[in-house]
Amino acid sequence: MTGVVDFEPSAPSLYTFGGAEPVAVVKPGQILRTSTEDCFGGAVRTVDDLPSRVCQRFNPVTGPFYVEGAEPGDTLALHFAAITPARDWGMSATFPHFGALTSTHATATLQPPLEELVWQYDINLQVGTVRYAARRSDFAVELPLDPMLGTVGVAPAGGEVRASIVPDAHGGNLDTPELRAGTTLYLGVNVAGALFALGDGHARQGQGEVCGVGVECAMRVTVAVDLVKGVATPWPRIETDHQLISIGAARPLEDAFRISQRDLITWVVELTGLDVLDAYQLVSQAGRAAPGNVCDPLYTMHAAIDTNVLRGATAYGDSHRRLRGLAETLW
Amino acid sequence: MTGVVDFEPSAPSLYTFGGAEPVAVVKPGQILRTSTEDCFGGAVRTVDDLPSRVCQRFNPVTGPFYVEGAEPGDTLALHFAAITPARDWGMSATFPHFGALTSTHATATLQPPLEELVWQYDINLQVGTVRYAARRSDFAVELPLDPMLGTVGVAPAGGEVRASIVPDAHGGNLDTPELRAGTTLYLGVNVAGALFALGDGHARQGQGEVCGVGVECAMRVTVAVDLVKGVATPWPRIETDHQLISIGAARPLEDAFRISQRDLITWVVELTGLDVLDAYQLVSQAGRAAPGNVCDPLYTMHAAIDTNVLRGATAYGDSHRRLRGLAETLW
Amino acid sequence: MTGVVDFEPSAPSLYTFGGAEPVAVVKPGQILRTSTEDCFGGAVRTVDDLPSRVCQRFNPVTGPFYVEGAEPGDTLALHFAAITPARDWGMSATFPHFGALTSTHATATLQPPLEELVWQYDINLQVGTVRYAARRSDFAVELPLDPMLGTVGVAPAGGEVRASIVPDAHGGNLDTPELRAGTTLYLGVNVAGALFALGDGHARQGQGEVCGVGVECAMRVTVAVDLVKGVATPWPRIETDHQLISIGAARPLEDAFRISQRDLITWVVELTGLDVLDAYQLVSQAGRAAPGNVCDPLYTMHAAIDTNVLRGATAYGDSHRRLRGLAETLW
Amino acid sequence: MTGVVDFEPSAPSLYTFGGAEPVAVVKPGQILRTSTEDCFGGAVRTVDDLPSRVCQRFNPVTGPFYVEGAEPGDTLALHFAAITPARDWGMSATFPHFGALTSTHATATLQPPLEELVWQYDINLQVGTVRYAARRSDFAVELPLDPMLGTVGVAPAGGEVRASIVPDAHGGNLDTPELRAGTTLYLGVNVAGALFALGDGHARQGQGEVCGVGVECAMRVTVAVDLVKGVATPWPRIETDHQLISIGAARPLEDAFRISQRDLITWVVELTGLDVLDAYQLVSQAGRAAPGNVCDPLYTMHAAIDTNVLRGATAYGDSHRRLRGLAETLW
Repeated sequence: MTGVVDFEPSAPSLYTFGGAEPVAVVKPGQILRTSTEDCFGGAVRTVDDLPSRVCQRFNPVTGPFYVEGAEPGDTLALHFAAITPARDWGMSATFPHFGALTSTHATATLQPPLEELVWQYDINLQVGTVRYAARRSDFAVELPLDPMLGTVGVAPAGGEVRASIVPDAHGGNLDTPELRAGTTLYLGVNVAGALFALGDGHARQGQGEVCGVGVECAMRVTVAVDLVKGVATPWPRIETDHQLISIGAARPLEDAFRISQRDLITWVVELTGLDVLDAYQLVSQAGRAAPGNVCDPLYTMHAAIDTNVLRGATAYGDSHRRLRGLAETLW
Repeated sequence: MTGVVDFEPSAPSLYTFGGAEPVAVVKPGQILRTSTEDCFGGAVRTVDDLPSRVCQRFNPVTGPFYVEGAEPGDTLALHFAAITPARDWGMSATFPHFGALTSTHATATLQPPLEELVWQYDINLQVGTVRYAARRSDFAVELPLDPMLGTVGVAPAGGEVRASIVPDAHGGNLDTPELRAGTTLYLGVNVAGALFALGDGHARQGQGEVCGVGVECAMRVTVAVDLVKGVATPWPRIETDHQLISIGAARPLEDAFRISQRDLITWVVELTGLDVLDAYQLVSQAGRAAPGNVCDPLYTMHAAIDTNVLRGATAYGDSHRRLRGLAETLW
Repeated sequence: MTGVVDFEPSAPSLYTFGGAEPVAVVKPGQILRTSTEDCFGGAVRTVDDLPSRVCQRFNPVTGPFYVEGAEPGDTLALHFAAITPARDWGMSATFPHFGALTSTHATATLQPPLEELVWQYDINLQVGTVRYAARRSDFAVELPLDPMLGTVGVAPAGGEVRASIVPDAHGGNLDTPELRAGTTLYLGVNVAGALFALGDGHARQGQGEVCGVGVECAMRVTVAVDLVKGVATPWPRIETDHQLISIGAARPLEDAFRISQRDLITWVVELTGLDVLDAYQLVSQAGRAAPGNVCDPLYTMHAAIDTNVLRGATAYGDSHRRLRGLAETLW
Repeated sequence: MTGVVDFEPSAPSLYTFGGAEPVAVVKPGQILRTSTEDCFGGAVRTVDDLPSRVCQRFNPVTGPFYVEGAEPGDTLALHFAAITPARDWGMSATFPHFGALTSTHATATLQPPLEELVWQYDINLQVGTVRYAARRSDFAVELPLDPMLGTVGVAPAGGEVRASIVPDAHGGNLDTPELRAGTTLYLGVNVAGALFALGDGHARQGQGEVCGVGVECAMRVTVAVDLVKGVATPWPRIETDHQLISIGAARPLEDAFRISQRDLITWVVELTGLDVLDAYQLVSQAGRAAPGNVCDPLYTMHAAIDTNVLRGATAYGDSHRRLRGLAETLW
């Protein structure tokens, strides 16, 4: 099939956005099929594999991919046709100095850190569940499988190279459960070819990713790629069949909230022609908001609005619907 | 009906939690029927009534109510059997120095402030909608009616008296859309009689209340009251038929997140006997989180978990279900 | 001497600003001589007296004092003629959940808290030193004695009553080493009589009060009192012989910074007639800034500028110089 | 003189730490003489040169310099023997979306931004003054000349490349007035050769750099370079003849405070053998703290302690004193 690019990565080696040569070229209108390792690089396989002992680096990504024709000022549209666990297990952990409820590199204290502990989840693709099992009692419960990618981004602006664990205007480690199959992610292009990369699959995660990680899992990923020429996108945006989502990344968390709300309001103004204060009012009453992560170097929050509230407005030249149609040709 | 206390407030006069004599006594097991004015004290009735001109004070509450037998260390349970708009219209506004997207008293800048503008919403109780209408174009859209109370609290600890616009451990201006009819709010009691008060109804609000107010509306409120003796509650908690919710209030916003997550984890430990790290892991993967307000003197966020994830755990001696049953005797 | 009011408090009993009857009346132009207990109410007297065991409440203040003629919209000027340790020892401590480098009520984590430990300092009034002695080695060193009051405030606005541990626009627990003898503190009056109170003496403290307390010490205090009628003061301000200081109280810390800088800029505009952007520029290059506390319910920062940079501008009708003269009549 | 490396940069071209080839090699024990452009790349030369019109990029740095023998895990010591204005004028400005008292990229609002305005300062090297002149009145005043470098850093860890406007653990845009001639800056080495660069001279700046820039000025710089093998430095540190300083960079500002205090406490423990809680107590009472910048992508604060409080402790094998001696051989 000429419209499909298959790329199978070897051992994890990319840990940044920017600063690396492309591993493959994708044309707008093509579909990329690839896979991603988990945030531990696959090194945590039992509850006895403490990340601090078995991992040298965290959060490998697959890529970067060069998108033909992409130039600064364009928008890259990535439609996730499928995000499927590549294993029947996922891993999670607490960390001594990472996560929202322990002191960290930045929120530095003099206390003893939190204990490092690992959990293993069984994933049942047929039933659509992940099984939580307590470490220190026999409590266990099935949770809904809800696969997503924690990390998708492009090369940053200004010649910067950012660790893959960082979310920012270039995307990166957004760690939001909204980035599941069926959605389209819009990212502003900063360099020729966009140079996007992706990884950090979670079989599921809670909102806020409070312990610092989700149910980490290697993934098989199918992405339909589009390019919206001459249209800039200041912050990562997601379109689903029913809503528009803006994502802000910042500290403190209220700044991530402010960014996401302001971006959504600006977007609504563009799509509806509403006055900015009218759009502010509409989003204030009709909007939804939630944290993605409150643990990474920058925190993320999203602002969302149902598209039916916007009375039929269409974003990015209906790229989401077009890509969804393109992806359906695969099945 | 001996189990019902009716209290009809006169003109708005209470703007604090603490510092006021009770207006009525309610016994555990009784139902209170009362009403609340909107946050403008009813003074903003058309889009030409600028709050800065027509309002002297903001956010009146009805109460305080003395709960017989309530003592410090107990928990007050308030089940909201009904929260019904008392008018067929609601008002909203932007403010020069209030709201998440303008500089404020605390986030002080030297810029010109945002313009003050008022919106009027038509409320259709039969259909269950509130109608947004733009001020500067003919754009209009129906949004779902979703009535809630922004402000419910008790007298604070330590002899403090707090403005009704402040949320904190005593409840107060939580401004979360989760406080709708059908839920039970748990608040720790700090003084004899608890002295709870309530107000600030919204016909609906977005998550984060980004412009600073919801669709403000006077309400008819029916509350079933219970007292859980000898059980302390550190932060406001909500129980619905399907989930448990902890609310944190703080600045910066990540501290509100931390408080809510830590309180929910602690609560889960109590209900399930899970080890604290096991509960941390479970909430991290199964939890939900969202902002209530990101505009008040303290911001609020909630952490929620489905009760079915907890395998049948029962909170506060099943107070929620008992109060729901009590309320049903009214119909 | 008719110009002097002597007030000797009995056992510590006041722990709030607002909500209490005045203990004495002071007229503008009079001098008040009184004393204050330390933040432990005098209960921590040896390194074996753990605050969590021997203290029921923290941070008692002396007062409130009713200032004759003070009305909302006026400014109270308090010139500290003398702040003198009443004992030859002071106490300090770490706390499990209080201080900048441990998790707290608001910055909630799941870690083990910090250890509680007490230090005793010898104070040598003649030499002007406080002696630090390590608990777990024989390291000891003399530090300069630099007595100050951590807590000075008036009754808050809006009928609020705030715990004495809270700093805000009404003053309160500012915990800044700038509040030493020789300075004049300006506070906006919110209620008839102002109702000021004071306490929380420190023999010295570092900037930021990182462990949560200074070298806590009972004090003898001499205050010259003045009233500036019809002049409002939005945030606490201090005048010394050589500089003007504005204090902001907020979380996150950058908001305390913003408040203090904006208030100083506004003040400079009033005193010099400079355009606001010109004043912004001048303060940006000539200003100084430092934290008071980064541990209390609201953090404090101050912004300062040398009065000679303002070319002879005079604040509050030269109240500072007049009060200093008044105080000198005592000696 | 074999111990001196002279490097004269051509037009500004480096705007990052990391990601660039070295321009020269310096050996430990050598002295580097070079020059730096101002943050505007020299393009703002009159008050009519609005930065948004005449500048494409901001904050060029000179370098990077490869330090022979430097390897990850070492500490680079840079002693600033001289920082001298290369012109008799400096420029400052306000920006629409940069600075502490306007909404920004991260603290996003919907308000009109602040006005962009430029100020020119006359620098008098002989008298040691910079002359502030208001734009909108005839107010003018001489301020003390106090030259410093806003930006000094090494290549970051983890393969990252950071914009020169960002401060972090690698140094960078610290924007603290403490980085003046006579001090030694210690930076942890992350890559072979350290690859340090420097720029962003200020004829002076206020603490907090509230408007976003100092009195920006091209500089002649003389740096004595040393390498402390096998000793890691987690955050930038400064030694002067009389004090030790740790710098934290983070948002919110309290995290920069926490980092700096924790690093200073850890450093004091190493130098004195004090128990960590004893060091916490000592720094709490004897320490000083101040903001560097509250405007850059990460804010900076420093924690300082007088070396005499530490009873003769010597840092980094007395590198500061050795480098100062080396620099004196130049005169």
